[in-house]
Amino acid sequence: MRIDLNCDMGESFGLYQLGHDEEVMPFVTSINVACGFHASDPLNMLRTVRLAKKNGTAVGAHPSFPDLVGFGRRNMGASPAEIAADTIYQIGALRAICQSEGLRLQHVKPHGALYTMAAADIRIAGAIAEAIYAVDPRLFMVCPGKSEMVEAARKAGIRYVEEAFADRAYTNEGTLVPRSEAGAVIHDVTEVAERVLSMVKHQKVISIDGVEVPIVAQTVCVHGDTPGAVQMVKSIRNRLELDGIGLEPFGRSV
Amino acid sequence: MRIDLNCDMGESFGLYQLGHDEEVMPFVTSINVACGFHASDPLNMLRTVRLAKKNGTAVGAHPSFPDLVGFGRRNMGASPAEIAADTIYQIGALRAICQSEGLRLQHVKPHGALYTMAAADIRIAGAIAEAIYAVDPRLFMVCPGKSEMVEAARKAGIRYVEEAFADRAYTNEGTLVPRSEAGAVIHDVTEVAERVLSMVKHQKVISIDGVEVPIVAQTVCVHGDTPGAVQMVKSIRNRLELDGIGLEPFGRSV
Amino acid sequence: MRIDLNCDMGESFGLYQLGHDEEVMPFVTSINVACGFHASDPLNMLRTVRLAKKNGTAVGAHPSFPDLVGFGRRNMGASPAEIAADTIYQIGALRAICQSEGLRLQHVKPHGALYTMAAADIRIAGAIAEAIYAVDPRLFMVCPGKSEMVEAARKAGIRYVEEAFADRAYTNEGTLVPRSEAGAVIHDVTEVAERVLSMVKHQKVISIDGVEVPIVAQTVCVHGDTPGAVQMVKSIRNRLELDGIGLEPFGRSV
Amino acid sequence: MRIDLNCDMGESFGLYQLGHDEEVMPFVTSINVACGFHASDPLNMLRTVRLAKKNGTAVGAHPSFPDLVGFGRRNMGASPAEIAADTIYQIGALRAICQSEGLRLQHVKPHGALYTMAAADIRIAGAIAEAIYAVDPRLFMVCPGKSEMVEAARKAGIRYVEEAFADRAYTNEGTLVPRSEAGAVIHDVTEVAERVLSMVKHQKVISIDGVEVPIVAQTVCVHGDTPGAVQMVKSIRNRLELDGIGLEPFGRSV
Repeated sequence: MRIDLNCDMGESFGLYQLGHDEEVMPFVTSINVACGFHASDPLNMLRTVRLAKKNGTAVGAHPSFPDLVGFGRRNMGASPAEIAADTIYQIGALRAICQSEGLRLQHVKPHGALYTMAAADIRIAGAIAEAIYAVDPRLFMVCPGKSEMVEAARKAGIRYVEEAFADRAYTNEGTLVPRSEAGAVIHDVTEVAERVLSMVKHQKVISIDGVEVPIVAQTVCVHGDTPGAVQMVKSIRNRLELDGIGLEPFGRSV
Repeated sequence: MRIDLNCDMGESFGLYQLGHDEEVMPFVTSINVACGFHASDPLNMLRTVRLAKKNGTAVGAHPSFPDLVGFGRRNMGASPAEIAADTIYQIGALRAICQSEGLRLQHVKPHGALYTMAAADIRIAGAIAEAIYAVDPRLFMVCPGKSEMVEAARKAGIRYVEEAFADRAYTNEGTLVPRSEAGAVIHDVTEVAERVLSMVKHQKVISIDGVEVPIVAQTVCVHGDTPGAVQMVKSIRNRLELDGIGLEPFGRSV
Repeated sequence: MRIDLNCDMGESFGLYQLGHDEEVMPFVTSINVACGFHASDPLNMLRTVRLAKKNGTAVGAHPSFPDLVGFGRRNMGASPAEIAADTIYQIGALRAICQSEGLRLQHVKPHGALYTMAAADIRIAGAIAEAIYAVDPRLFMVCPGKSEMVEAARKAGIRYVEEAFADRAYTNEGTLVPRSEAGAVIHDVTEVAERVLSMVKHQKVISIDGVEVPIVAQTVCVHGDTPGAVQMVKSIRNRLELDGIGLEPFGRSV
Repeated sequence: MRIDLNCDMGESFGLYQLGHDEEVMPFVTSINVACGFHASDPLNMLRTVRLAKKNGTAVGAHPSFPDLVGFGRRNMGASPAEIAADTIYQIGALRAICQSEGLRLQHVKPHGALYTMAAADIRIAGAIAEAIYAVDPRLFMVCPGKSEMVEAARKAGIRYVEEAFADRAYTNEGTLVPRSEAGAVIHDVTEVAERVLSMVKHQKVISIDGVEVPIVAQTVCVHGDTPGAVQMVKSIRNRLELDGIGLEPFGRSV
């Protein structure tokens, strides 16, 4: 049994540092690299890809709405045509950087508000899935489970993986508890590690109401920029390995 | 005998329109497409590539310093490492857009201040040439004749073409007369057409002092955004064809 | 009887030209000047203010969401705190440019998506109105009639004017027919001029269904960037003057 | 005897944090606030101004070339007209934010590459000085001693202060030892404090060659973003106060 841990990385910008990329990189198997629209710049992208190469981590693109000051977290009324072109542009930019280091791009995971909007809107999800297909049909799209993105990936004929979130609470329906609600984020390191083990091994998670709900976790999203991120990621990885679960990029095992 | 006419295109941005791309496209053989750093945006890049595809025009990247408000015409003290990463990023972004339309990227021609600085500074020229090599060693670099860029292309092991300028006056040494000097730009349509014919057929041009000087013209740069641009380009093309000189992208004939 | 004609201006950016500012300027009485967030740059703002000064036109700020590539026409999920700070920033920047030319800023009119969202959302309207108050309580806010912006202006204690649109169709309720519907924009020059006369003189307009509806027009919005804009603006002005209605900035007469 | 300590602040941007503004603010008397061109955004500018207000610190504008990714540290070939307009824009934006908090702007200090270029080029220095005059002739310009900026300030008729640098080595001619040279930056806290005391009390500093050279220090520049910055600033302040030298914004004492 094998699983992938994915983490957002390469979010520094110019002089600005963000995240703990060097410390977290050895413990995750896939990274989502900012492409200059919500964070990062070409030189920082190159440094991030080099760090991934050194650690044997698989690299994916993390395209966003063009909103540097808002870190891509603000909804934007961009058209599907704009979103498609922006996505192709960002994938291409990162792919060339990967190629300059002899790496192959594994996947695409939309960032922030674009991810949330795509999960709920088939037109946006479709624009992204078709953009990925147009660039390289072998690229995976990382999707939230049961979302419009899964539907769009199927229609576009691209490969996809469904992701679960290590430190987020789930409803009885298997959807994320919104961040605005109490208990939405789980901070206890041991609890999070046990939950991830359950997601991966038994395809189950205990909901915020205490109910056991089924969950698909082809990759598990962890965070690299919060306080305690390094300890959290290590703890998840150790717990999985203790149970004999191997860690590897989903591109090799899916 | 065959020659290439190259022209900057895809320089519109968002709502802003620039140039006469639709009118000029049928008469040139290669275009240099802005990549979002001095002009253009992903959707406009896609539209430009579609227009090139429709006309059978070869597509090249036109990377720039990141200076939208200055249209990439202002010198910037960027480091070679920054320039290399910016170049890879821009090439990759455009190449993915080309690929989404089934086109292959032919070349890279630095834009504006980056072009001028690279022509005179081997460190900058080298950064660009190595960036091109890292992305795809088959890409051509378009260089001013006798410049540091030619030297850098040789050292990096990439293919290159030397370009001549249709409407610019040359010194006795075969270099461009600076735009700041009187007579630097030739506006007479017939004269320009005859000069281009001479450059292509006899590898010679009459200098601003009336001396015949040798010139290498593997591609001839024409403009698409000036008043009278369309007429100028048509006139050059007609003059060449009248002499039996075929027009085709340098990527096919060099 | 006096009325103001307001028009968006100063929307060029760097090398990019937009609108017919020089031709339209003599015929309008107030302009809404882009402040660098959806269009324009500092040097272009200065040129626009100089042109207004030469023509005796009153100047207002046209703040926007930060979205240059989308020309501020895309909805953005910015917070009221972000909108307030962005508004103060943009007003201040333009006001300093006015001051450097000895002009006083007359008003603030939010641009594009920010205007539409503020008209319908009291939190956004309130953020803008309070930002205006914080910078200078004597500044007018230009508002669509019967909108949340009117309410917000009253609460914040700033002066405001309600604007009518010269070339737009109205519903029986006195609201704008959405641009997506047939007949939303009126193109006939004579018809538009007569409608403006009716709005100004009789505070009435004929709705898209043929019903006479009351309308408040303390300023009338005309366009300077459409084909035929110059002719349209001249025609409106001439029609008003023919009926003895004087044209002057609302800041002098309200 | 009184002196001012000035420090760059408000350099965070969106989600990105930079510097130790809260810790350093109580120990300095004037701050140079980034205006969105090399760092910061409107909401962060507002937060910085509020923090200054709370601490009674005087606020100045820190205008820059438009180069966010390069943090304004890269030379740019902008024209004097562009620099003037950019300066007015940035001053105006920050001044409005100050005004919204009831504060008055004290000064303008160009940032990074703009500062270095202005110090050596009278055309650039003149563009900035005249821009300041156009906005408000009572604003001070902070200048390096013996620079073209001093000359430009005199010609433009604006007030200025000459600054010395707390932790930088000086040549026998009283100019800064370039950062590229060994010993250019002094890291010893006690030594720096003693040097500042000497600059302020005796208008003298020991050069890198051990020679006593005269220096004008109407304000002393300290850093807020380096490791140990807080300790360094406290130490300088304590040393000055120990000698009975009062700390206050230069706008009150000059």
